[in-house]
Amino acid sequence: MFELKDAYSVQLNQEGQLKHFITVEGLSKPLLTEILDTADSFVGMGAQQVKKVPLLRGKTVANLFFEASTRTLSTFELAAKRLSADVLNLNISTSSTSKGETLKDTLQTLEAMQTDMFVVRHSDSGAAHFIAEQVTPNVAVINAGDGRHAHPTQAMLDMLTIRRHKGQFEPLVVAIVGDILHSRVARSQIHALLTLGAAEVRVIAPTTLLPKHIEMLGVRVFTDMNQGLKDVDVVIMLRLQKERMQSALLPSESEFYRLYGLTNEKLTNAKPDAVVMHPGPINRGVEIESAVADGPRSLILDQVTNGIAVRMAVMSMAMSGQTAEKNNVVEA
Amino acid sequence: MFELKDAYSVQLNQEGQLKHFITVEGLSKPLLTEILDTADSFVGMGAQQVKKVPLLRGKTVANLFFEASTRTLSTFELAAKRLSADVLNLNISTSSTSKGETLKDTLQTLEAMQTDMFVVRHSDSGAAHFIAEQVTPNVAVINAGDGRHAHPTQAMLDMLTIRRHKGQFEPLVVAIVGDILHSRVARSQIHALLTLGAAEVRVIAPTTLLPKHIEMLGVRVFTDMNQGLKDVDVVIMLRLQKERMQSALLPSESEFYRLYGLTNEKLTNAKPDAVVMHPGPINRGVEIESAVADGPRSLILDQVTNGIAVRMAVMSMAMSGQTAEKNNVVEA
Amino acid sequence: MFELKDAYSVQLNQEGQLKHFITVEGLSKPLLTEILDTADSFVGMGAQQVKKVPLLRGKTVANLFFEASTRTLSTFELAAKRLSADVLNLNISTSSTSKGETLKDTLQTLEAMQTDMFVVRHSDSGAAHFIAEQVTPNVAVINAGDGRHAHPTQAMLDMLTIRRHKGQFEPLVVAIVGDILHSRVARSQIHALLTLGAAEVRVIAPTTLLPKHIEMLGVRVFTDMNQGLKDVDVVIMLRLQKERMQSALLPSESEFYRLYGLTNEKLTNAKPDAVVMHPGPINRGVEIESAVADGPRSLILDQVTNGIAVRMAVMSMAMSGQTAEKNNVVEA
Repeated sequence: MFELKDAYSVQLNQEGQLKHFITVEGLSKPLLTEILDTADSFVGMGAQQVKKVPLLRGKTVANLFFEASTRTLSTFELAAKRLSADVLNLNISTSSTSKGETLKDTLQTLEAMQTDMFVVRHSDSGAAHFIAEQVTPNVAVINAGDGRHAHPTQAMLDMLTIRRHKGQFEPLVVAIVGDILHSRVARSQIHALLTLGAAEVRVIAPTTLLPKHIEMLGVRVFTDMNQGLKDVDVVIMLRLQKERMQSALLPSESEFYRLYGLTNEKLTNAKPDAVVMHPGPINRGVEIESAVADGPRSLILDQVTNGIAVRMAVMSMAMSGQTAEKNNVVEA
Repeated sequence: MFELKDAYSVQLNQEGQLKHFITVEGLSKPLLTEILDTADSFVGMGAQQVKKVPLLRGKTVANLFFEASTRTLSTFELAAKRLSADVLNLNISTSSTSKGETLKDTLQTLEAMQTDMFVVRHSDSGAAHFIAEQVTPNVAVINAGDGRHAHPTQAMLDMLTIRRHKGQFEPLVVAIVGDILHSRVARSQIHALLTLGAAEVRVIAPTTLLPKHIEMLGVRVFTDMNQGLKDVDVVIMLRLQKERMQSALLPSESEFYRLYGLTNEKLTNAKPDAVVMHPGPINRGVEIESAVADGPRSLILDQVTNGIAVRMAVMSMAMSGQTAEKNNVVEA
Repeated sequence: MFELKDAYSVQLNQEGQLKHFITVEGLSKPLLTEILDTADSFVGMGAQQVKKVPLLRGKTVANLFFEASTRTLSTFELAAKRLSADVLNLNISTSSTSKGETLKDTLQTLEAMQTDMFVVRHSDSGAAHFIAEQVTPNVAVINAGDGRHAHPTQAMLDMLTIRRHKGQFEPLVVAIVGDILHSRVARSQIHALLTLGAAEVRVIAPTTLLPKHIEMLGVRVFTDMNQGLKDVDVVIMLRLQKERMQSALLPSESEFYRLYGLTNEKLTNAKPDAVVMHPGPINRGVEIESAVADGPRSLILDQVTNGIAVRMAVMSMAMSGQTAEKNNVVEA
């Protein structure tokens, strides 16, 4: 629905700093590393009595959720509050976005209310990017998921979780398993992993859940899970949208679980210290065995913790980059 | 539904300071000017990193919305948070207000929770005033719109917008255009403009949308828009409630637009530096041409910005006046 | 639905301090007194300009409401904000709790988000206790009502209200009137009153609204209200759930009011300085005469004020006890 032009450069200011966070695609290794370093500094804060920093004090963050997502909204709301921002939650019916002009009026009104950041959740691919193109240099835009329930902060929290447990990306073999076709997060993960220097990225899925020409992204493709998991360091399970499983092309839930569900048995193919990730919420017995999800290799709850830290990182970095840009514009 | 007695004096304390903000009618020129001056000081803050002032720190503001209005709620919520207040949003079904006693119980309960301010939105005229009469000197009441979707902060943000662009009211000819009959904001605007010293106030509308004897308020009445716009400094468009346009007496939308919609062509009748205002959200092509709404004379987005400042002003002034009153009562 | 084991000790840490607040049953007189003393210090703050204390600054309080209750949610939200906490309101459909595992996943996810406190409202008895058993020593759990709309903070705010007006419990005769059978708050009140040393606790109700063997709790039972009110110091009215009044065993509303509704006439049986309490919202003319509810002996609005203070007290005490426990665990 939204036309994308120059999808990557819109999120950087003239100094090459983040000013919006729309997608990990197009971001350089140093910038991805800066996000991880910044997020790392916030993870440690969780153990402290006071988890707040004043980085967004006096700023107003508007959560523009064009589709409901309690879980995602909560993580962004928490991240904003821990940055000391004032938070405005706005549920906007999807209907109003079909009229492009009305959306523009809504954005301009929110800008006139001197909102400093839009956290955007929308069912259409490109919505956050479209909005980033509309706003003036007063507002930073953060993508909280557009189209196919992907959000770039998910890819970055996965990277943070891997780095915190494996130290570095260079020696790692990482397998992404499941519904690659419908998941835009898989694409983001592939890009981030390769940019950050992972030795090898694999995708494991039935042919029906693989995008065409996926191997052109630089990944190895497996349809057999035991083969695909051979000697991997990291297993990233994707979430199955159960409602999509009814297509005639797809296997049943039990068939999918038998072939691609992550069990301790299948996991024996991976390295002895391999770790397991899943974005949650878990479909136990469909994507993953409970013994794995709750087992010692599971990093699922670390991902949640790191998710808050990554959101705090991109929000504070984008605000800072946006302010720098604005000052440049004012001076010019 | 609510009986109004002494509608104007209830909002002033013994020193003549604002303690509630229910209506602009009955407020003196110095008091209206004080509101504008206070609001002016808040507008400038928008450019700063930290937009917060501690004027309501430790105070609790309860938004009592008996009818839903996301946009209005957001502006009051933002204003309260920028004054450092704690905010409690309460959606109260209109049904409970039909039992007067129950409403009183609700108010007393909220007072007992040591709430310091009620921001009231209600579909019945006089609801905010009725509530202001019920509360003890611990609580300031702000009218966020009662009956026919009018709210006095709208009239004041319009005055602030005019003053910030024209400097002073004395030389101004101002035209209010559209559905005067159903708009209580028009009445408030007329009163505020005349009190603040505007040279001439005009209303422009079809006879069917004009209240009887409107000229007794001290305005000039026009049914022809080109004549009415002749040499005006300010054009205030009113919002058309589309659902009311179906009455047999009213023209069709396209007919209304032809006769009273603000176009650049009609605007040539006004002074060359005339400005255009509209409360939003805009019905483009019904009340106003997009070229005018988005054009250089449009102050529509300034109105939004000024709306936050005006709300901050009346909230902080009323809280201050209420505290002074309370101290008087305690001393007496 | 939830199995209760060791229902009382779960809420104390190794030092015997409160770390969760699930029930008043099992709590000692010194601990109940500490809650009242702490709450007392917060009541006085209401008169001040700034009602906030930084006891929960940097902490995140998640309100987990598995059933809607605007009024209760508001009191906990206010209490948390006045303790300077960040507040996250989560409405969770009851459906998800029927799958125990899913609830556990939800709790673990919230813990991973570094939430420090869960305020739990649930329709099943024992839900808050079950949750307290699941969480790690990072999270304090406060029961905001489980099963039959009871909540232990209600019993404690009643105790605070009595102590603030009567000074001490030892000489007091207290009558609890109404639907004892369906009210778990009555059981909590009886326990708290006897633990705090009240001279005599009476229950007054029709046989059909009395639990079997209620006298074994140490109370005197009356079915005649005039007799039961004889020389009492405090009358605690219970709320009638109107929907439960339709059972064939129960009297009609008017019949109930005639026999057990509190009127000034019946109140003449009590001591001249007897006080009257009711948890609100009031069913006027069913449980209580308006003249009594609004009269000089009514402490109904004091109860609301004290309710905020009691919630602030148990929240700050549990957080403090939980932190102490956590430090012990870390050291061990």
